[in-house]
Amino acid sequence: MADKRMRLGAALLATGEQMASWLYPSTPADGAINLEHYKQMVQKSEEGKLDFVFIADGLFINEVTMPQYLNRLEPVTTLSVLSAYSSKIGLVGTISATYSEPFTVARQFASLDILSKGRAGWNLVTSALDGAALNYSREQHPPHDKRYELADEHLSVVRGLWDSWEEDAFIRDKESGVFFDPQKMHKLNHKGEHFSVQGPLNIGRTPQGQPVIFQAGSSDAGKELAAKGADAVFTGIGGVTTVEESKRFYDDIKGRLAKYGRTPDELLILPGISPVVGATEEEALAKYEKIAGLISIENALRYMGRWFNHHDFSQYPLDEPFPELGDLGSENYKSVTDRIKKYAKDEGLTLRQVALRNATPKGTLVGTPVQIADELERFFHAGAVDGFILLGHVLPEGISDFVDHVVPILQARGLFRTEYEHDTLRGHLGLKVPVNRNATRVESDSNLK
Amino acid sequence: MADKRMRLGAALLATGEQMASWLYPSTPADGAINLEHYKQMVQKSEEGKLDFVFIADGLFINEVTMPQYLNRLEPVTTLSVLSAYSSKIGLVGTISATYSEPFTVARQFASLDILSKGRAGWNLVTSALDGAALNYSREQHPPHDKRYELADEHLSVVRGLWDSWEEDAFIRDKESGVFFDPQKMHKLNHKGEHFSVQGPLNIGRTPQGQPVIFQAGSSDAGKELAAKGADAVFTGIGGVTTVEESKRFYDDIKGRLAKYGRTPDELLILPGISPVVGATEEEALAKYEKIAGLISIENALRYMGRWFNHHDFSQYPLDEPFPELGDLGSENYKSVTDRIKKYAKDEGLTLRQVALRNATPKGTLVGTPVQIADELERFFHAGAVDGFILLGHVLPEGISDFVDHVVPILQARGLFRTEYEHDTLRGHLGLKVPVNRNATRVESDSNLK
Repeated sequence: MADKRMRLGAALLATGEQMASWLYPSTPADGAINLEHYKQMVQKSEEGKLDFVFIADGLFINEVTMPQYLNRLEPVTTLSVLSAYSSKIGLVGTISATYSEPFTVARQFASLDILSKGRAGWNLVTSALDGAALNYSREQHPPHDKRYELADEHLSVVRGLWDSWEEDAFIRDKESGVFFDPQKMHKLNHKGEHFSVQGPLNIGRTPQGQPVIFQAGSSDAGKELAAKGADAVFTGIGGVTTVEESKRFYDDIKGRLAKYGRTPDELLILPGISPVVGATEEEALAKYEKIAGLISIENALRYMGRWFNHHDFSQYPLDEPFPELGDLGSENYKSVTDRIKKYAKDEGLTLRQVALRNATPKGTLVGTPVQIADELERFFHAGAVDGFILLGHVLPEGISDFVDHVVPILQARGLFRTEYEHDTLRGHLGLKVPVNRNATRVESDSNLK
Repeated sequence: MADKRMRLGAALLATGEQMASWLYPSTPADGAINLEHYKQMVQKSEEGKLDFVFIADGLFINEVTMPQYLNRLEPVTTLSVLSAYSSKIGLVGTISATYSEPFTVARQFASLDILSKGRAGWNLVTSALDGAALNYSREQHPPHDKRYELADEHLSVVRGLWDSWEEDAFIRDKESGVFFDPQKMHKLNHKGEHFSVQGPLNIGRTPQGQPVIFQAGSSDAGKELAAKGADAVFTGIGGVTTVEESKRFYDDIKGRLAKYGRTPDELLILPGISPVVGATEEEALAKYEKIAGLISIENALRYMGRWFNHHDFSQYPLDEPFPELGDLGSENYKSVTDRIKKYAKDEGLTLRQVALRNATPKGTLVGTPVQIADELERFFHAGAVDGFILLGHVLPEGISDFVDHVVPILQARGLFRTEYEHDTLRGHLGLKVPVNRNATRVESDSNLK
């Protein structure tokens, strides 16, 4: 990074990333549909000068042991409301490319970008599991490669639509009666395998030029999609993977950019982290144990089954080595299931140990604020990450502990901003405003707007 | 109506209903994308204790002489933001059933209903023109009857999804660890001609039980859809149509309710009105002329062509009688084109006169506040309407003039509320909370929540 500072975001994951988080004492049990809770989280994140908040999504109920997925707010409506309760922080939301129309997606995020004055980001996912198909009038969920092919075309249509209007297309001069310059309106006329979209979009160029694109898949197809068209990648879990693993992933993705004519600083790699902060290491460990202890082993097994196509792990003895599963789980969440299989084998863990570790990943981020800051700095200075996205085990504590205790240390070390220097998400992330493909003259590439 | 009071809504139509409204001196030329303008309109509407604000939509650019349609905010994102700047008023937005997925629509409005604490409404349209198909990967726009058949099924799926969870399904008891009662979660298992949707929705029962359904088509199929499943109908233009015409339409729709087991008070008929208010009749007339004069005859002809499948009216002499058009225009906007043809013929108008009248409908609502209130009362007391939706020729003036000058008269006459008595849109409109089809015990039908 040019300015040698981390990028930091916070995921607003309802009651928390952890499946039993609703049971945590300071977590509102109805957090997934509680606007006050979301307001508190976005305002705390903005107090910490974080780059963005992020709202994930799902298109069906896939896991009755994950209460936060049963009854949850929809991301774009929620981010729109939160735009009114914040002023600087970026607002990133998931929409599945598999089950949406590019014209609709382009409008939603363009509209949010205007309403939030340049703070919108789209996390493009392909929806990994079959259940969504059953809610969307499809016989079958498309296979992994087909989904990424479709996502690639979807994204290119959305981006094309965002370039429908040149920046100065709207004149709106009451004196002359000239509202716009028709020469600066451009049809897309896309005709592809999956989509045919004429355009133009009925929203003009937005404050960011184009909303920021996030991408979360870590498969080969996902990496390629990110290298070609994303601005930032959510990946893996920092502090669980090693610096070496992270750096390998980082270099792999960054190395794919050149063939698309892009430079390494045009794509940010942001692993998830779930730190547990204590005044002392013992306090942090006790807090971790308290969170981990919210889950029963039955639920931990069911939760792990989710990554393995709802495999029934209760059929195996709990205290024997983790079972041989062959290719199971590689279709949908390959990077997750590969990691689970790897640590189970490498460390010779039992099924019980694997299930509990999977339910509440611990890693090296349980400790004092200084210990956590040290660890984040280690990953950052090794060139293994551009920053992190905070996945609090329990919320709002996972965010407030981090903002109150870890952010000030990162700031004191010059690793993180102390004030917002820009008004847009692109500005915070150090990403250029993309040049409009239809521009008839060179537009400013400044992100200082 | 039981309480003998009008229902009143305001359409937030960017710069105004009139095609050249952006030229009006007090109208912000960028009104269609100006959040401050929308905030001002919603707050003025709430000051007037109106039942709801409404945001229309379009899925393509169909008319370059309508600047407010070139570059406009998307309704659901905008209403979500506006929910934060208001506290009582209903928030109604258009989504096309032809180009959306019921699972997505059900989530968006359920989420908005939660975020706004019970103020969401969906205006179901079928998208009348062909252009949308070109932005949504379809070869052709479905014909009128097919669209309504699809809309009927779409609505029934959305309503079914909103009943996925019984009201008391979520227990969230930290002591016992019981989050929800699985007996109170219901799959929809819909398999129809157009949609197959398994459910359940991943949002629980919302504050209104179900968001309010508005419907805007006035064709026979539209009336039937409304009678079967809508809570309110936008129709025609009050003060342009006569009391007798309005009453015929009103009685026609209300007469269709019984066969669906519904009573007349379960569906509200709300014609659009575009009043022009002056301190004196002369002042009002002068204001009307000023607004009507914003438009050139060329643009007025092009605008009228929009209702007639983009027919080129410039081929006819301006000052000869309105041309014979046969069936032209009956496919998509039949009620509008029938009305135009009718007044052209009945009054023997020239093409120029018809085009200008169509561009800025005048009717009987140009006058003093008392004259306008008298006219609205006449329609209301004749049993021809349940209330009105305000389509300001120019905005925000069309709303602020009405709220400042006409509403107080309606209030003084006991025709309109002076304070909100409910917190939800259903409450304002006097509509019951629908009984959940899956309820295992009788739920409260109170709307006093």
